[in-house]
Amino acid sequence: MTDRLCDMSLADAGALIRSKAVSPVEVTDAALARIEQLNPRLNALWTVTAELAREQARAAETEIAKGEYRGPLHGVPVALKDLVYTRGIRTTAGSKILADFVPDFDATVVEKLRAAGAVLVGKAALHEFAYGITNENPHYGPTLNPWNTGRVPGGSSGGSGVAVATGMCYGAIGTDTGGSIRIPASFCGIVGLKPTRGRVSLHGVYPLGCTLDHVGPMARHVVDVGLLYQIISGFDPKDEFSEDHALGEIALKKSLKGLRVGVPANYFFDTLQPQVETLVRKAVGVMEELGAEAVPVTVPGIAEVTAANLTLLAVEAFTVHQEHMASRSGDIGADVRKRLEGGREISGVDYVKAHLTRMRVRRELQELFGEVSVILTPTTPLTAFPLSGAASQALSQNDDKTVKLRAASTQFLRGFNATGHPALSVCCGFDSEGMPAGLQIVGGLWDEATVLHVGYAYEQATDWHTRRPPLE
Amino acid sequence: MTDRLCDMSLADAGALIRSKAVSPVEVTDAALARIEQLNPRLNALWTVTAELAREQARAAETEIAKGEYRGPLHGVPVALKDLVYTRGIRTTAGSKILADFVPDFDATVVEKLRAAGAVLVGKAALHEFAYGITNENPHYGPTLNPWNTGRVPGGSSGGSGVAVATGMCYGAIGTDTGGSIRIPASFCGIVGLKPTRGRVSLHGVYPLGCTLDHVGPMARHVVDVGLLYQIISGFDPKDEFSEDHALGEIALKKSLKGLRVGVPANYFFDTLQPQVETLVRKAVGVMEELGAEAVPVTVPGIAEVTAANLTLLAVEAFTVHQEHMASRSGDIGADVRKRLEGGREISGVDYVKAHLTRMRVRRELQELFGEVSVILTPTTPLTAFPLSGAASQALSQNDDKTVKLRAASTQFLRGFNATGHPALSVCCGFDSEGMPAGLQIVGGLWDEATVLHVGYAYEQATDWHTRRPPLE
Repeated sequence: MTDRLCDMSLADAGALIRSKAVSPVEVTDAALARIEQLNPRLNALWTVTAELAREQARAAETEIAKGEYRGPLHGVPVALKDLVYTRGIRTTAGSKILADFVPDFDATVVEKLRAAGAVLVGKAALHEFAYGITNENPHYGPTLNPWNTGRVPGGSSGGSGVAVATGMCYGAIGTDTGGSIRIPASFCGIVGLKPTRGRVSLHGVYPLGCTLDHVGPMARHVVDVGLLYQIISGFDPKDEFSEDHALGEIALKKSLKGLRVGVPANYFFDTLQPQVETLVRKAVGVMEELGAEAVPVTVPGIAEVTAANLTLLAVEAFTVHQEHMASRSGDIGADVRKRLEGGREISGVDYVKAHLTRMRVRRELQELFGEVSVILTPTTPLTAFPLSGAASQALSQNDDKTVKLRAASTQFLRGFNATGHPALSVCCGFDSEGMPAGLQIVGGLWDEATVLHVGYAYEQATDWHTRRPPLE
Repeated sequence: MTDRLCDMSLADAGALIRSKAVSPVEVTDAALARIEQLNPRLNALWTVTAELAREQARAAETEIAKGEYRGPLHGVPVALKDLVYTRGIRTTAGSKILADFVPDFDATVVEKLRAAGAVLVGKAALHEFAYGITNENPHYGPTLNPWNTGRVPGGSSGGSGVAVATGMCYGAIGTDTGGSIRIPASFCGIVGLKPTRGRVSLHGVYPLGCTLDHVGPMARHVVDVGLLYQIISGFDPKDEFSEDHALGEIALKKSLKGLRVGVPANYFFDTLQPQVETLVRKAVGVMEELGAEAVPVTVPGIAEVTAANLTLLAVEAFTVHQEHMASRSGDIGADVRKRLEGGREISGVDYVKAHLTRMRVRRELQELFGEVSVILTPTTPLTAFPLSGAASQALSQNDDKTVKLRAASTQFLRGFNATGHPALSVCCGFDSEGMPAGLQIVGGLWDEATVLHVGYAYEQATDWHTRRPPLE
């Protein structure tokens, strides 16, 4: 029963809790057992909040027994990327500098999850400051991909990806500044949503790129991502970048009849592993079988805006860490230090030019979404690649191949961080070595509803979401 | 009759046209006669489109005779700041470099005015590239204040201010990146609105500060500014900075009963001419008589965001003119060249810090507008100051006093260019030398309706808007 509990969807577990067929305590104990079993090896969670989780589970059990059911997250175990502020719980952002940092307030998304009755089981591993280049965090050790522990789980929200994929929790909150939700979703065979920029509050989330950061949900099933998304989204006056837009009704249907889905004729299929291309094109075929019309499209300005993201990010990240670089640079990993240095000398004019590129492409992309409802691309051009060295070794700065693989892994993603368009990654199969591949579904601004609908229809027509990594 | 026609409000002239009591041709001829009389001396319009205006007036007359009335701007003469693109009509942006530039398309605001049936009488003077520091444009000569031709009309939309104040037209379109609509409104004794950032399309408007530019209406009466605003505003997919927000009902009422108006306890009354302070405080008293509750408020972050505007603007303006500085710098006035140079070396990090300040203060200000509906400030801390030299002389770069006066004239204004809040300037009386002073009414984001309502109520309780400058 424990294993079956851990592996079911958040929606199904929530329904069992609602019907009192299982108790939140039972569900939480199962998750904690799974964590105890797998986390020492995989290093997905750096802080396991077992005591808090049991306490929250008991409270949920009591409330539900009294008829005070709060909704589909009530009593359900979740994890948070360890740069999401939790009052009284260490929040490291993957850095040595913040090793002892304990926030005195909860991030807005945490407030919302708490209000929904969710149970927090732990804080999940990430690349240092979400800016490191591998899952081998120099301060907290490597995080391993459960499908093959010699491979990276992807990042920067790697711990979240692993925790979700292995059933340590039913969902997790990640952040995505250049692909950091979607890459681990792709590499770990789960679902991740980068919502529209401005849709989910950034308040209480350690920043990286102030105009590029996004907070979003990760889970094993599209329906679960949709439930989490609905809980965490909405205007937040505490976040200066939050925007007030109607949420729109989320209707997950299995038919795609009449929907026009764009398949890029440029850029997205230029450089990628042939097996990934095959899986993505098969996914397009599934969409057509479901009634969608696949339309070849040229995605405007995508190479330019993908480059612009790096300029914007370099400057913004250095702005965040200028003080750290001045006073604590020895406590920053070599890879992050090197990346940060790249932002120091960029001129204001070059930053503004990148911003203008972003705004122009944002507008042009938005026009494209007048012609097609979504576009379909590979999430990553490759499946999870090998860890660069022995798990316990520090990252070699001269490992060009690793750097290139990392850069490649963001190339279909980071443009949409600049433009702000919502993008979902769902699993679209496995390569010959058993590693999952991801399909990216990108939609118009504020139209997460359609992105989720398309993702759900595709998922329900396949069985990829039912597969689980080996648990040894 | 001609003079009475020119001096009435746009709304009244429009009503006469609608009722066929006067013809658009008659109204246009009166405006053109006024231009012929005054423009050679005041230099408000650099291009007088007399032929086009008569043609448009005749077309309007014909349409109205056929019962095809388009609305309150039909057949009404207006002017455009000469950086608003007009198809087939020279658009200089006040620069020598663009002396022969003839756009092949209309700005979106021009399309909207044409569709509303407005008659274009001319293109109005401005500071070079809207970035010069005086009304003595080095390429097109000085523009004079009609209340005292030894004084500046303010800028950069100075020609628009003069044309409106003297009845050469019923309204004009200006732009405002650091106060350029509100300063000439204040110095010329008219009304000017800087709408919420994103509300009025920037498409086809020569840029200065890509995140600070605003397009807005200028007229002699609040009701006229309201009519123009309603015509020119709205989402424009051609403008990447345009935002889609509901317009809200504009109801101009004479009572302010129950409205809370904020009177700054900080910053806005620290350094200004005593006579201006007296006039603004009297205006607050008038609001109270009309039923408003005057509430002392501390305006958050205003000094910081006012400084941030200069950093943002310096970088953005250099970005616009980088090519000009490389290839045509000899054709740029010394003042503009010097200002542009200031943006070349600013780092991306300093730009991003200014942007973060902007976003923080924007949020804090928006909170303030949860407590009060508007805040009331002086528009400019001073009335129109003397032209710096003989009218035909080039500007002296060493005239510190002029530079300081110019900087002072933007200090209550440019913060709201950075935050994007709507701000209206209305005349609030005259100093002992007969020069008009301006009251600034700032409102919450997207709440132009309240700003206009307050401005209208105040205006109707005073008679400043009925005064006209001497016409000799």
